[in-house]
Amino acid sequence: MTVRVGILGATGYAALELIKILLRHPSAQVAVLTSRQEGRPHLADVHPILSGRLDRHLENAESVDFQAECDCVFSCLPHAASAKMVKPLLEAGLRVVDLSADYRLTDVAVYEQWYDTQHPDPERVGPTVYGLPEWFREKIPTASLVANPGCYPTSAILALAPLLKAGLVEPTGIIVDSKSGVSGAGRTPSPVTHFVECHESVMAYNVGKHRHTPEIDQVLSRVCEQSVQVVFTPHLIPMERGILTTAYGLATTDLDTAGLQAEFQRCYEDEPFVRVVDYPPATRFVKGTNYCDLAVHRVGDHVVVISCLDNLVKGAAGAAVQNMNLMFGGDETAGLVERSE
Amino acid sequence: MTVRVGILGATGYAALELIKILLRHPSAQVAVLTSRQEGRPHLADVHPILSGRLDRHLENAESVDFQAECDCVFSCLPHAASAKMVKPLLEAGLRVVDLSADYRLTDVAVYEQWYDTQHPDPERVGPTVYGLPEWFREKIPTASLVANPGCYPTSAILALAPLLKAGLVEPTGIIVDSKSGVSGAGRTPSPVTHFVECHESVMAYNVGKHRHTPEIDQVLSRVCEQSVQVVFTPHLIPMERGILTTAYGLATTDLDTAGLQAEFQRCYEDEPFVRVVDYPPATRFVKGTNYCDLAVHRVGDHVVVISCLDNLVKGAAGAAVQNMNLMFGGDETAGLVERSE
Amino acid sequence: MTVRVGILGATGYAALELIKILLRHPSAQVAVLTSRQEGRPHLADVHPILSGRLDRHLENAESVDFQAECDCVFSCLPHAASAKMVKPLLEAGLRVVDLSADYRLTDVAVYEQWYDTQHPDPERVGPTVYGLPEWFREKIPTASLVANPGCYPTSAILALAPLLKAGLVEPTGIIVDSKSGVSGAGRTPSPVTHFVECHESVMAYNVGKHRHTPEIDQVLSRVCEQSVQVVFTPHLIPMERGILTTAYGLATTDLDTAGLQAEFQRCYEDEPFVRVVDYPPATRFVKGTNYCDLAVHRVGDHVVVISCLDNLVKGAAGAAVQNMNLMFGGDETAGLVERSE
Amino acid sequence: MTVRVGILGATGYAALELIKILLRHPSAQVAVLTSRQEGRPHLADVHPILSGRLDRHLENAESVDFQAECDCVFSCLPHAASAKMVKPLLEAGLRVVDLSADYRLTDVAVYEQWYDTQHPDPERVGPTVYGLPEWFREKIPTASLVANPGCYPTSAILALAPLLKAGLVEPTGIIVDSKSGVSGAGRTPSPVTHFVECHESVMAYNVGKHRHTPEIDQVLSRVCEQSVQVVFTPHLIPMERGILTTAYGLATTDLDTAGLQAEFQRCYEDEPFVRVVDYPPATRFVKGTNYCDLAVHRVGDHVVVISCLDNLVKGAAGAAVQNMNLMFGGDETAGLVERSE
Repeated sequence: MTVRVGILGATGYAALELIKILLRHPSAQVAVLTSRQEGRPHLADVHPILSGRLDRHLENAESVDFQAECDCVFSCLPHAASAKMVKPLLEAGLRVVDLSADYRLTDVAVYEQWYDTQHPDPERVGPTVYGLPEWFREKIPTASLVANPGCYPTSAILALAPLLKAGLVEPTGIIVDSKSGVSGAGRTPSPVTHFVECHESVMAYNVGKHRHTPEIDQVLSRVCEQSVQVVFTPHLIPMERGILTTAYGLATTDLDTAGLQAEFQRCYEDEPFVRVVDYPPATRFVKGTNYCDLAVHRVGDHVVVISCLDNLVKGAAGAAVQNMNLMFGGDETAGLVERSE
Repeated sequence: MTVRVGILGATGYAALELIKILLRHPSAQVAVLTSRQEGRPHLADVHPILSGRLDRHLENAESVDFQAECDCVFSCLPHAASAKMVKPLLEAGLRVVDLSADYRLTDVAVYEQWYDTQHPDPERVGPTVYGLPEWFREKIPTASLVANPGCYPTSAILALAPLLKAGLVEPTGIIVDSKSGVSGAGRTPSPVTHFVECHESVMAYNVGKHRHTPEIDQVLSRVCEQSVQVVFTPHLIPMERGILTTAYGLATTDLDTAGLQAEFQRCYEDEPFVRVVDYPPATRFVKGTNYCDLAVHRVGDHVVVISCLDNLVKGAAGAAVQNMNLMFGGDETAGLVERSE
Repeated sequence: MTVRVGILGATGYAALELIKILLRHPSAQVAVLTSRQEGRPHLADVHPILSGRLDRHLENAESVDFQAECDCVFSCLPHAASAKMVKPLLEAGLRVVDLSADYRLTDVAVYEQWYDTQHPDPERVGPTVYGLPEWFREKIPTASLVANPGCYPTSAILALAPLLKAGLVEPTGIIVDSKSGVSGAGRTPSPVTHFVECHESVMAYNVGKHRHTPEIDQVLSRVCEQSVQVVFTPHLIPMERGILTTAYGLATTDLDTAGLQAEFQRCYEDEPFVRVVDYPPATRFVKGTNYCDLAVHRVGDHVVVISCLDNLVKGAAGAAVQNMNLMFGGDETAGLVERSE
Repeated sequence: MTVRVGILGATGYAALELIKILLRHPSAQVAVLTSRQEGRPHLADVHPILSGRLDRHLENAESVDFQAECDCVFSCLPHAASAKMVKPLLEAGLRVVDLSADYRLTDVAVYEQWYDTQHPDPERVGPTVYGLPEWFREKIPTASLVANPGCYPTSAILALAPLLKAGLVEPTGIIVDSKSGVSGAGRTPSPVTHFVECHESVMAYNVGKHRHTPEIDQVLSRVCEQSVQVVFTPHLIPMERGILTTAYGLATTDLDTAGLQAEFQRCYEDEPFVRVVDYPPATRFVKGTNYCDLAVHRVGDHVVVISCLDNLVKGAAGAAVQNMNLMFGGDETAGLVERSE
């Protein structure tokens, strides 16, 4: 069976990555692409790298009969715009993976405070499944709506959840210091993402104020059944893609580096997309893949975890396809890894 | 049928790309990897991006029974070292795609002059098939040895051959100005490829002396059945991969840009990996793909062709797999493009 | 005596470079800065790198009494806007270095065709001094208006003028293939200069249509007293600053590389900012300096010249200060080189 | 009076920066340069950017009469090699700024443990002045030997000392997460600094084991007269130069961001090279300057300080000249800032 896929907001970088993955997918098909651009531009004009690879136009969403044409819709729209579009699709019986932040938080008030807007579909906030299979796999197959995790939260949660779950670090005083490539800022030109401004430079931004903070707090709190509030600092790095997160927690254990590594290996041993490594992970070793590489260290009375992923794959499009695979009963890794034999 | 593949010299960047392509290939299998490193290192230690994706050790070539284990051998060894290894494999009946320069030139004397070494297998120089399917496809299926083209020559020949073949430019006075990413220089650290030295810098190198010059001359001469001697200048660009070649020839035609474009489209209309485009091609639009994008312009009394490809794919590993596909009777595009429907 | 300097359009990259040079200049002072931004922003808010180094606000040009406050005005405004502002300043007796293209061409019709706008001050087009001291030094000291050369033309003219002047290459069929960093595209964000779009990519742009083409043609024609029409192709390189130009001409001489080098050395031996080198020049060796490095090669029947400069210094702000130094009777190198003893 | 300067180990990046600063310095002169290279290479062959700017050869140190030729010697030699050379120079009465790590630590045992070598001049370890003027200015003018601080320690200490000194954060549990450009790794090519390996990638290295850790601990402990042990994680960023350090401490104060900022402004108000800023600092805003930019934030119960400097200037050569200026009684800022009026 082939899953017919629609993508809302197909002009951005996550959507491009999604299309590239779906082109390799053995049982999915790109059925519909939409954008708010006028005149039905051809996909190849919007993403020249796809010239000759997929013959599609970008449609206006209003003119599409999603029920007839799609089994699964991915929304790559900005927050608020996304929920507004997703709501009627769900009501029409479609299954949706939402890559925006709209359904990730469990509390409408927290959403409205951090995102500074009214939520267009508040009733679905809370019960929606958080699509991080490593921690919430069992809920995904039956979900009609999955909230695809944020890129920073994925890197932070995969790094910290094993420690918090096992009580190996204090739930307070956790530091999450993340370094991201510029594609995370999207495709719209701005002074901050102007080549000359961000090349040969590194900066911190939104210190203490980044919208992914409550998402990290909420999911970690759920995992360890205690209140967790991290200090989160994102940084902009002069590279296209990749996130490296360095997470620090105060140890409550005597385990040394080898012992902690064994814990991580045990925790993630069945996960197809988490690699616990004993060398220094680098974003280039996960580039273009759906892997999250993790290295854990004991440093004095702290535990330091390094986490690397590709923000457009495991941090967005790859995770979305992983969720779709689980929702539609296929191989969880379809389109995301190659046969090794 | 599955083609069992051996790769000689598996530690470099072209070999890594080859392995990544073969992992996606529906009817090939990585059977044997060799390197001159001691101690049978695991593939994942040499190429961490492949961790968990292929469980192989790098063997010493002497200890491998290629006849028993492989149908096709790719040599990623340096020139001279390559022919030395390839010669006995051919004699043992194996089929080989040689990514080195050893069998590309048709004249041993020219080889020995430009490469400043004695050729280890001079008898095969000359008759060996030059593996550029766009111009020599018919000879590849029956070849036991295919010389995989150089990265610069591929970009230059695909740009200029249609013009020379059709007599649209003079065969003299042709300028080939190429810009290459740093991966073309290989994986061995050197002052020239030290990050601080080549980042934020562009330089020309080997002006008038680059070893790909006779290869370009020879193939273009063969295509247009006249002597062609280009002026070739390669440049090092601060990026990982990609070659953009700007080729200039004196027009012998009145065709304008649109007319030339139509010629190119006609010439390459059946080619799966050449895209004639009417927008400014950029190396990012071919990155990670086996495409060569071409744009042709009339500028005064000259024709200017821009050619873009990924030096590690269409300029090396992708072309090698395309050759293997032709040699073993499969779909020429297997492993190299995705289904678009 | 101190030259009091005004800068029109102080928000851009060339203006920033100008200010940095003037801060080191022993006999110049930044008196006035203007911009079209509202609210008199502080210089440090517009260029944070200058925090604590120069306490100035950006004024609206209308509110400034240039006659009272300045001896010399640099215009960093866009073309057309520049001439409109410069015209009344000249009429008021001020001396001006115009970094825009407005006064570089000698023919209003050519200007209006290539720049697609009416010239606001057509009477000064033609007689205005072209501020390239290496070729027109004697005219600069007495000029009230100097047209500061374009960045690409400076790199091309310094490379080719010695050959054309001495009749060492044919005046026809000259190829100018230039590679520029992204700062040449200015500070305004756009899709082309968005980090993700131009990082890890190289592209040609405005093939056969770049506005610096007639400027190169005109100055080279003047130098060799024959009509010269070059084929000019600019390329965008993923670096902040620097231009490397590779220029090709058909030799009319038997001189080999060493002989050509001797010619270049003779031609430029008294020039403080031209270095004729015998190693491969790279833009990093001129970065932040006012030097243009030149290497000349004989390749078959062609002469190939490589030329490197910093587009914001020798290609803009440094050249402008060099012109100011000549206009105001100081040391031509003031502010631009350090004492070496 | 002119200070005649000798530089030991003039081939590296810090030495190049030192020479560039000294060329602009009004009262210093580069008298002698040494290297271990054979054959007295010309400076311009080692550093082509200096062609035509300084006519010097690199001498073998053994052949130089430092007493006759120099007033001040900068050592840019590797650790251990440095102290071995510096010791006899001091005994001969020369004044030295040592850019290596040899005299920074106060305890020979700690040095020998972290640097895994015997100290060649253990008697000077301990009493040697730590050349960070912002915290130890009064001791520098009379010192015959000054230990120039490490690049990471400068960024960390300037960020944290005001907080620890004033008791605004706990001395325990401090996190120092630093991001450095590749020039910090020196000029010797290696796999880690090979362009293709570090471009488009970020990695942590020497987690919990970097040799700058005891230097940070020691100086911060001295400043706040309590034992401080930070968790320090350095990261390699794909840029040439710049360090951004993000430091985290548990607040013992109720001060909010504005209050903390006022504290920092008060602390550093007379410092010529520290800028307390209220916008997001970026390494590009300090590039090529001797400034350290600091921004302080209150985030929950933590204080977060961002610190930016140029690792080759304030983190090495600029600081060294600042120390020399203090030692020789000149203006502390000579050669390091421009007059702003």
